[in-house]
Amino acid sequence: MDPILVVGSVALDSVKTPDGECKEALGGSAVYFSLAARLFAPVQMIGVVGSDFPQEHRELLESRGVDLAGLEVVRGKTFRWEGSYQKDFNSAKTLNTHLNVFEAFKPKLSTAHKQASVVFLANIDPELQWEVLSQMEEPQLVACDTMNYWISLKKPALKELLSKVDVFFVNEEEARKLTRESSNLRAARKLSEWGPSVVVIKKGEHGALLYAGGRLYAFPAYPVEDVKDPTGAGDTFAGGFLGYLAGGDLRDIRRVKRAMLFGSIMASFTVQDFSTRMLERIELTAAQDRYKDFLDLLDVGESLIAA
Amino acid sequence: MDPILVVGSVALDSVKTPDGECKEALGGSAVYFSLAARLFAPVQMIGVVGSDFPQEHRELLESRGVDLAGLEVVRGKTFRWEGSYQKDFNSAKTLNTHLNVFEAFKPKLSTAHKQASVVFLANIDPELQWEVLSQMEEPQLVACDTMNYWISLKKPALKELLSKVDVFFVNEEEARKLTRESSNLRAARKLSEWGPSVVVIKKGEHGALLYAGGRLYAFPAYPVEDVKDPTGAGDTFAGGFLGYLAGGDLRDIRRVKRAMLFGSIMASFTVQDFSTRMLERIELTAAQDRYKDFLDLLDVGESLIAA
Repeated sequence: MDPILVVGSVALDSVKTPDGECKEALGGSAVYFSLAARLFAPVQMIGVVGSDFPQEHRELLESRGVDLAGLEVVRGKTFRWEGSYQKDFNSAKTLNTHLNVFEAFKPKLSTAHKQASVVFLANIDPELQWEVLSQMEEPQLVACDTMNYWISLKKPALKELLSKVDVFFVNEEEARKLTRESSNLRAARKLSEWGPSVVVIKKGEHGALLYAGGRLYAFPAYPVEDVKDPTGAGDTFAGGFLGYLAGGDLRDIRRVKRAMLFGSIMASFTVQDFSTRMLERIELTAAQDRYKDFLDLLDVGESLIAA
Repeated sequence: MDPILVVGSVALDSVKTPDGECKEALGGSAVYFSLAARLFAPVQMIGVVGSDFPQEHRELLESRGVDLAGLEVVRGKTFRWEGSYQKDFNSAKTLNTHLNVFEAFKPKLSTAHKQASVVFLANIDPELQWEVLSQMEEPQLVACDTMNYWISLKKPALKELLSKVDVFFVNEEEARKLTRESSNLRAARKLSEWGPSVVVIKKGEHGALLYAGGRLYAFPAYPVEDVKDPTGAGDTFAGGFLGYLAGGDLRDIRRVKRAMLFGSIMASFTVQDFSTRMLERIELTAAQDRYKDFLDLLDVGESLIAA
């Protein structure tokens, strides 16, 4: 299986929810993505941490098969994020963001990195995403995510980036803000016209929409009894989706739809505990068990397989 | 096919949305329910209108096979509701409610009505719902809906009613308010413990959850390009669901899941135009076409039919 390259944040997160909290725990978009994608394909991580980044986190990631050759360590402090959630978990309230060493981050790719066939540009500055992409030799599948902050601040750079992207992950609110369309179908169609042949609109506990081949497909979230901490769910979704899809063909719509289920399944593990606590313990068989269960949940007793 | 009895409001609705408006158009929970359910089974409507209720509305309902023998006409004005929606259609803002003749409504069932095997108690005063139910002889399937207003005002009467109900339709916000649970699974479980073996939690554009046999099933909404007016979507869902299910067995989970799809499909017609304009024109084949399409949308290329 070809490796997947991911560039994004590696962070120490402090999160409070009505059920508890965690302090300076492993987090960051590149971390959540990697810990999900590694079940399906080798992962190479591009990022930066400070000299205070705990050795145990490095060891955890490496023990899960994540290649950290591209994780720079520079003198200073690791990126830190503090957030809290209300009871309904609908949105994180950011209490503090300390970019620290991330502020001066200039990703440099090795020869091996440049040859990766799948790349995920997590929600960092679109200009940094661009910088990574422009170093790649001939990626077969380019995916990216973004966030409100960059939509407000760097929309032109983001649009420019999207013209080179195959799969765009975006949440519902961001899709509407970016396109100024209130219908998800029209928003997805417009985003797709800007470049990505596949657009995934994430709706948190309400599941996710897939726009591909001119059609909109809706899938529920894999149901879990209790959400403990939704931090990282979106990046985990992308990791499950791209991991499952890596080496496949984006024109195989049913495969892309199965990737949606695996995205949702991986995210379901992440939200069941703080930080990466549950995600890091998951093996492929656990994901496959939830996949079988997901198919069973959707089973209406009539073949869904089109003639 | 055994007839379905519905008791609920018959109204003249005035609705404003960002896309347009309608004035004193046909509406009411019993009307939306009937126009959806009539595709699948004969419907008998119990309700009240004033002497100003347009003859054309009567003719429309009768031409669609809805039995109006139980629709009382009394001197006075028909129930009127005025509401508006913001761009995201998330919730209706009620501008005016004039109960008019509905205020003194005391439903009386004829012998034929009392023998109906399926009954839907739409979101009217739980004490009125109870009054209807207590007149029934031996209904095989009892379903009801409610709304925030009755949850605040008459929770004990509503709980009492639920102990006699098989299928409870409730929206997400109401389910949480009624049970004081923030997790949908726990809310559904608690509601089911109060009586209904099947609980349907409606989430509008995000689809609906089904709790049955101790499990929670999630289904997306049937996607439509543009929502014009969501008024009546919930009652239409109930009409499609119960219409499809009438005569079936609630323990046949896959059949109940198919009923969820038909509920969503019927609602998708309602929201595509103001009032009942699109719903009233739909024939069974149009619903079946959307059903095939719905199966195709969910098709992931692997059998969903459990072994």
